[in-house]
Amino acid sequence: MFGGLHEECGVMGIFAGRKAPVAEYAYLGLYALQHRGQESCGIAVSEDGLFRQHRGDGLVAEVFSEEQLAHLGQGSIAVGHVRYSTTGGKNPNNIQPVVVCHVKGNMALCHNGNLVNANELRRAHELKGAIFHGTADTESMIYTIVGERLTAPSTEEAVARAMPRLQGAYSCVLMTATKLIAFRDPNGFRPLCYGRTESGEFIVASESCALDAVGAHLIRDIEPGEILVFSGQGVQSDRRHCGGRRALCVFEYIYFARPDSVIEGASVHAARLMAGKFLAKESPAQADVVIGVPDSGLDAALGFAQQSGIRYGVGFLKNKYVGRSFIAPSQQMREKAVRIKLNVIRETVEGKRVVLVDDSIVRGTTCSRIVRLLRDSGAKEVHMRVSAPPFKHPCYFGTDVDSEENLIACQLDSVEEIARAIGVDSLAYLSIDAAHQIAGLQGMSYCDGCFTGNYPIAVPAGQSKHKFEQPIHSGN
Amino acid sequence: MFGGLHEECGVMGIFAGRKAPVAEYAYLGLYALQHRGQESCGIAVSEDGLFRQHRGDGLVAEVFSEEQLAHLGQGSIAVGHVRYSTTGGKNPNNIQPVVVCHVKGNMALCHNGNLVNANELRRAHELKGAIFHGTADTESMIYTIVGERLTAPSTEEAVARAMPRLQGAYSCVLMTATKLIAFRDPNGFRPLCYGRTESGEFIVASESCALDAVGAHLIRDIEPGEILVFSGQGVQSDRRHCGGRRALCVFEYIYFARPDSVIEGASVHAARLMAGKFLAKESPAQADVVIGVPDSGLDAALGFAQQSGIRYGVGFLKNKYVGRSFIAPSQQMREKAVRIKLNVIRETVEGKRVVLVDDSIVRGTTCSRIVRLLRDSGAKEVHMRVSAPPFKHPCYFGTDVDSEENLIACQLDSVEEIARAIGVDSLAYLSIDAAHQIAGLQGMSYCDGCFTGNYPIAVPAGQSKHKFEQPIHSGN
Amino acid sequence: MFGGLHEECGVMGIFAGRKAPVAEYAYLGLYALQHRGQESCGIAVSEDGLFRQHRGDGLVAEVFSEEQLAHLGQGSIAVGHVRYSTTGGKNPNNIQPVVVCHVKGNMALCHNGNLVNANELRRAHELKGAIFHGTADTESMIYTIVGERLTAPSTEEAVARAMPRLQGAYSCVLMTATKLIAFRDPNGFRPLCYGRTESGEFIVASESCALDAVGAHLIRDIEPGEILVFSGQGVQSDRRHCGGRRALCVFEYIYFARPDSVIEGASVHAARLMAGKFLAKESPAQADVVIGVPDSGLDAALGFAQQSGIRYGVGFLKNKYVGRSFIAPSQQMREKAVRIKLNVIRETVEGKRVVLVDDSIVRGTTCSRIVRLLRDSGAKEVHMRVSAPPFKHPCYFGTDVDSEENLIACQLDSVEEIARAIGVDSLAYLSIDAAHQIAGLQGMSYCDGCFTGNYPIAVPAGQSKHKFEQPIHSGN
Amino acid sequence: MFGGLHEECGVMGIFAGRKAPVAEYAYLGLYALQHRGQESCGIAVSEDGLFRQHRGDGLVAEVFSEEQLAHLGQGSIAVGHVRYSTTGGKNPNNIQPVVVCHVKGNMALCHNGNLVNANELRRAHELKGAIFHGTADTESMIYTIVGERLTAPSTEEAVARAMPRLQGAYSCVLMTATKLIAFRDPNGFRPLCYGRTESGEFIVASESCALDAVGAHLIRDIEPGEILVFSGQGVQSDRRHCGGRRALCVFEYIYFARPDSVIEGASVHAARLMAGKFLAKESPAQADVVIGVPDSGLDAALGFAQQSGIRYGVGFLKNKYVGRSFIAPSQQMREKAVRIKLNVIRETVEGKRVVLVDDSIVRGTTCSRIVRLLRDSGAKEVHMRVSAPPFKHPCYFGTDVDSEENLIACQLDSVEEIARAIGVDSLAYLSIDAAHQIAGLQGMSYCDGCFTGNYPIAVPAGQSKHKFEQPIHSGN
Repeated sequence: MFGGLHEECGVMGIFAGRKAPVAEYAYLGLYALQHRGQESCGIAVSEDGLFRQHRGDGLVAEVFSEEQLAHLGQGSIAVGHVRYSTTGGKNPNNIQPVVVCHVKGNMALCHNGNLVNANELRRAHELKGAIFHGTADTESMIYTIVGERLTAPSTEEAVARAMPRLQGAYSCVLMTATKLIAFRDPNGFRPLCYGRTESGEFIVASESCALDAVGAHLIRDIEPGEILVFSGQGVQSDRRHCGGRRALCVFEYIYFARPDSVIEGASVHAARLMAGKFLAKESPAQADVVIGVPDSGLDAALGFAQQSGIRYGVGFLKNKYVGRSFIAPSQQMREKAVRIKLNVIRETVEGKRVVLVDDSIVRGTTCSRIVRLLRDSGAKEVHMRVSAPPFKHPCYFGTDVDSEENLIACQLDSVEEIARAIGVDSLAYLSIDAAHQIAGLQGMSYCDGCFTGNYPIAVPAGQSKHKFEQPIHSGN
Repeated sequence: MFGGLHEECGVMGIFAGRKAPVAEYAYLGLYALQHRGQESCGIAVSEDGLFRQHRGDGLVAEVFSEEQLAHLGQGSIAVGHVRYSTTGGKNPNNIQPVVVCHVKGNMALCHNGNLVNANELRRAHELKGAIFHGTADTESMIYTIVGERLTAPSTEEAVARAMPRLQGAYSCVLMTATKLIAFRDPNGFRPLCYGRTESGEFIVASESCALDAVGAHLIRDIEPGEILVFSGQGVQSDRRHCGGRRALCVFEYIYFARPDSVIEGASVHAARLMAGKFLAKESPAQADVVIGVPDSGLDAALGFAQQSGIRYGVGFLKNKYVGRSFIAPSQQMREKAVRIKLNVIRETVEGKRVVLVDDSIVRGTTCSRIVRLLRDSGAKEVHMRVSAPPFKHPCYFGTDVDSEENLIACQLDSVEEIARAIGVDSLAYLSIDAAHQIAGLQGMSYCDGCFTGNYPIAVPAGQSKHKFEQPIHSGN
Repeated sequence: MFGGLHEECGVMGIFAGRKAPVAEYAYLGLYALQHRGQESCGIAVSEDGLFRQHRGDGLVAEVFSEEQLAHLGQGSIAVGHVRYSTTGGKNPNNIQPVVVCHVKGNMALCHNGNLVNANELRRAHELKGAIFHGTADTESMIYTIVGERLTAPSTEEAVARAMPRLQGAYSCVLMTATKLIAFRDPNGFRPLCYGRTESGEFIVASESCALDAVGAHLIRDIEPGEILVFSGQGVQSDRRHCGGRRALCVFEYIYFARPDSVIEGASVHAARLMAGKFLAKESPAQADVVIGVPDSGLDAALGFAQQSGIRYGVGFLKNKYVGRSFIAPSQQMREKAVRIKLNVIRETVEGKRVVLVDDSIVRGTTCSRIVRLLRDSGAKEVHMRVSAPPFKHPCYFGTDVDSEENLIACQLDSVEEIARAIGVDSLAYLSIDAAHQIAGLQGMSYCDGCFTGNYPIAVPAGQSKHKFEQPIHSGN
Repeated sequence: MFGGLHEECGVMGIFAGRKAPVAEYAYLGLYALQHRGQESCGIAVSEDGLFRQHRGDGLVAEVFSEEQLAHLGQGSIAVGHVRYSTTGGKNPNNIQPVVVCHVKGNMALCHNGNLVNANELRRAHELKGAIFHGTADTESMIYTIVGERLTAPSTEEAVARAMPRLQGAYSCVLMTATKLIAFRDPNGFRPLCYGRTESGEFIVASESCALDAVGAHLIRDIEPGEILVFSGQGVQSDRRHCGGRRALCVFEYIYFARPDSVIEGASVHAARLMAGKFLAKESPAQADVVIGVPDSGLDAALGFAQQSGIRYGVGFLKNKYVGRSFIAPSQQMREKAVRIKLNVIRETVEGKRVVLVDDSIVRGTTCSRIVRLLRDSGAKEVHMRVSAPPFKHPCYFGTDVDSEENLIACQLDSVEEIARAIGVDSLAYLSIDAAHQIAGLQGMSYCDGCFTGNYPIAVPAGQSKHKFEQPIHSGN
């Protein structure tokens, strides 16, 4: 609602091994993953090797009607995808799952992440006569896998042979007529886990909250580099690409993932509480009440309050009816209609010194508007605390943390300047060190490139990261 | 979402006195009042005495498109309404505002409340040849006012003369070609307040949150019995019917109204915090964490935690994407898809003794499902605390607290039985005495008929309160 | 499509006397009557005295979904209506059937026609405290009937007592809980007939084509002045108001009604063929081919060809896909996109002297565009023949033949001037005498006020005929 | 409406060479070609080499909103397509134009026709690693062209080199960043013509009626085998593949094309009149009136009447409001609702011996229903005349004249049996010889494979013609 940063995708896969309401599983799971992508979504089902699919622009609630869900029907396998794309121009051919037919049969692929060598791959395929319907790197990935499939004895072997050529972030589910294959890049940038329902279906999902949504219990995360195959022969793991440098996006914990998810054995909600506690230790404030910006800042605000002993309060009422179809007020009304989405609960802040917690400051415009609302409602002081370090570098691995022009932390030289720009009495970010400590408690290593500029693998130099995410150019 | 109790309406009126975007004011205000009625809504605008209107079934977001808002256009006065009706069969003629033409001109009426003598009034008008398009008591109210208008020198005088014949709850806005008239029954069952924007428009609304939404500051509540007229001559107050027994619905504070609203000078959010505190005092629990059911129980849970010293926790993740268009899972999936709307944050409750706070228990089914979720997530004990007394009696004044068959507190003899039914280790309700204390702090008297069965005015005996809210019967 | 003149309504009634798919009968019948009104439509059903209704703006195809038809369900009686209103501003309260509740029960009324004393009636009711939701004269009619019903022993008797006060055109169906009452004004301006299906349901409809559509055979027309009651007691006719001067709209035969309908025992198609033949006799032309403007001029063109011996040809291809949702071309394209709706079949007209037949010339703009198309396609001469006399006077009885400013025949002094204006080599209208002869063959007398200015009953002097068909004005 | 046979596609191309409303041209043109395909449609626009596209299921009126047309905007080139597919399962990836990116740039292809070697082509590409998104042969065509483009100096040369490998029917328009290329298979199965507007835009279209719709004049047909290139260098024709055996589908004249179109210099309307005349000579009837089934039989009925001297009559009224959204009557009503789509004009047929003309009998069910309607309306005799020879063989070149099971002429041994089956007094088809004479008048040779089984080129043996038009199968 307030123009934050976005994860680029969520994936979901179901392997029932017999006729089951797999489309419905996918539908429920995508609802739980909707926070990872709101632009488009789709589901593909395999019933005895026949594929059916439905995809469209919009939320799961908009794309799937009862009819369409019924049309997808029952099957033995399904995959689903929610997508957020970073460019305005939407190409319908980019909506996933991408379902294709090749010489050995069919496949449907769902991809969360971003390849850093997408351009080179694409060029190489094009030189052999390949045609591309969309602009996403998913088609390059498919050509690479299908190219290997010409000689590989199975699709999973084709995936294994293709992986060394796929550089970057990819957490994928791939459906064939009879198998569900889940695989994750050797760095493990994006999460991917699986579990099982009591009736025996295997569920693969970007986050464990999707497992909860369909009543499955979490078994474990797919390992970075692992290829996991669900088939009539049970579950087989191919770990030939495991063992690389782990680099899970630290931002998943403190920003993207749903609080009720568990990633790498750790609760996302707990990580956010902890971020608030670290903030309180690193950057305390003299204040009467701690409030969070709904919904993104609430967990860290509670953590800040618990650590600091300052009272936790409910500072805002978020209007849950203001959604996509809200008609933007006319110029004349815009000034007035500031509190339609978010209204201050005056009782909480009037006459108080307020600690305001949120999980990020992107452009700063929303933030300064909220600060003004607080002051208009009688807050005496506003001390902003941000539960993540400042973004200073673009992300090449599947989020839209992008160009430096859009990031206030790149535009302004110091925290003091940002504080002045957004109008707060004091401002502090979580330290990178603290972010590592939160992460380190789980004994993992992480990617923090968007904070530090140190990326775990080489990134393309001197080139926009979204080369193909534009209206298609054409030669002659 | 979980089948709670409902307020029946919200009203909104704007008097600009010159050409202004009054439809847009109404639109924004209705968004802020949407929690008071989700079944239908409408806006009527007067531009130099010409009335335009648009009404429809559904949420504000569904009924008003950009085109329709543009069609309503600018004007000097507007009224708007959101409606919740208690019966399944929707009669489009009941959607408000009701716009009619009579011998002296036009009027558009919006009504929040319920007349207890609607049947007698209707019968009396029918015997004089009146015809009724809808089933709501609003038409009876209009006939009564129009009947007086035949001889009264002005519409406001007609309203004043009609009021003694209108028994029950009514907080209304009435638009004529050149005036906006707000009036409230002498008991003041339902709230009604007004304020002014910086550019000079007067705004009348059921709750002050609608004033905030359009950038108006609250002036004061309309007095019980008061008739307030906004016209080219300024603001005139007729208080001839003031001074009766005040009987504001206590339920507005602890259940219906939006937390950021201020009613009779008191913050609704503060009232809910206080309810939690009283609960903690009256019915303490030995526990490790206090959680609230989102969103209705969160404020009281925080109050309980503050009073008791037990840690406040975030117990649930509510999926904000699950709305009206969510397709109910098939029989086969229903068992599994329990956590799609509300998922437990296991981290918060696992291995803990939990105090679970909500603002009511209606049928008990939702409640017992939530309790089961908590236990499945490892909660060791669940102590439920309800921040209102148990409903035991129907409401005749504009809510759907209705038949005793649907209220678990009527069906079961004791709190212990209810506790067993919903599966909690202990259960306590707020005492009626505490409810009065919360209220009493504002020096007001209240209607608590739904808790006590003592109503401030006589209610119809031996008759359903919704006689006309059914498909129309017909004689010959 | 080309802005012709419009009938204002069509009505439909079904009396099954037992549970039957009466809503479906109404749905099918309204499809057959759609040419009589395309702005809004509605159906009301009585099931054991319970009324259900659905109404909306748009075509039958747009207003009724499968769900809504199912919701109306089965019943013993139904009435339906299609409406064309002459003003842009649509008031949803004018959509029929108008369903109301009065002291003796319910009724649903559908009205085709126009009252000339609507204003006086309305005023009289308003002075007694009546309120009006819409602007149509139907509400005045209902108040008049309901007023009589207070003392009359039955609804049909109330209708009979009300009729002397209702002046103008009205062909109505009225549904009570147990009866279907059809009645027609004593002049019989608008058609109304009834028939019966093989399974015994009685069907009342504006035109017999609606009887065909539901498989009913035509019994006879309702007589001018007749009240026909369908009830458990069978069919009763009240003819106390019969015997007045018959004045069926002559325009029904030569313009409005569907060619496959039979009115007063005569085929509409035959009347149109005959109009063409008279035209050929009265105003012959030296030509090579006779063509009609689709669809309105085709029948008369065939008659002209048969009488004159000149070859009948197909002159145009009408694009049946160009409907309401066609997006008007941009300014830049408008000049070019002349043949998207209607394309000339060059083969038929190239190098030929063409007789072009249509049933009217309203403003002349469409006509001159068509003539230009013909010339561009190589027609050597264009001789236009119009199968009705020129409209020179407004209609007060249920059509939109309206203000003189919009009628080319009023604006220009002579047929020669009109011919010049539309660019034809010769032009002739059907004579009023011939129109009478076509009519006279059926031994009837007709209203030809729009041609002659002689109306069968007094019409309101010095006043727009559509006083209330405007946005509502309001006093104070 | 009555389940006839279908053409499979229509194509449209615009080359403006400078910024122009090319999307609007395409929109208008597709409206004129809508009869060639009603299942899906699409438009792609090139603005300075940037491609924009919009495609969807449904009619042009349903797929294109004002917004979407505006989004396509202005450009220098556009291509458009309407599609009818013969299988129920719609694959959204089959909707055209197919827009792809390859190593040398972009292209958008629209194809009308059917390749007979689609399977072999596809297999060959798949063996090189190709992936297919849809099931239509258009992707095989693109791979073939793109494969040649790797070495060819231009796209038109790539097309020229690819054509020998493309066997079957194809009339195509192909857009690159700067060129519009139209090409047609050497047999010229499907029509394709071009023209120019007065403002200089070149228009390519399946039929000349689309040229009329946008105000362009017809220049000539694209020659069978010709490649016509529109670019900044003007218009270039490559005829290296011209000169083969011409085999225009004879069915275009007598069935598919719009009567106002001109194909190979001959009027389609004239061909249909002539078919009626031949019918009257070959198979006269003793009758009182000749009527046609609307709209497909009207032209030939008029020809039959002109030749035989029997009076031409209007036998039916077709309800133009019964379209896609018509709700099928319930079982109970189906028997009754026979005349909702097509009602007999009793006046025309009662007591008469009737010649009934239509352009085909497919399954026979619609036909026998119509015959029954005529008899129920009093027709004494019904003599059916069909203005085409009987279909006895599947078509492999772009229509859905398909399996023998669905064709009554294959199922029954003799014309007499068919006559008995549909209940007519006599029945006659146009002779193949006459069909050739109609065709021969234009000095052309034609494909009449669906009548004779003699195809101009080899067709695949022992294999369904729609191999890929099914839900996708998948191996492993």
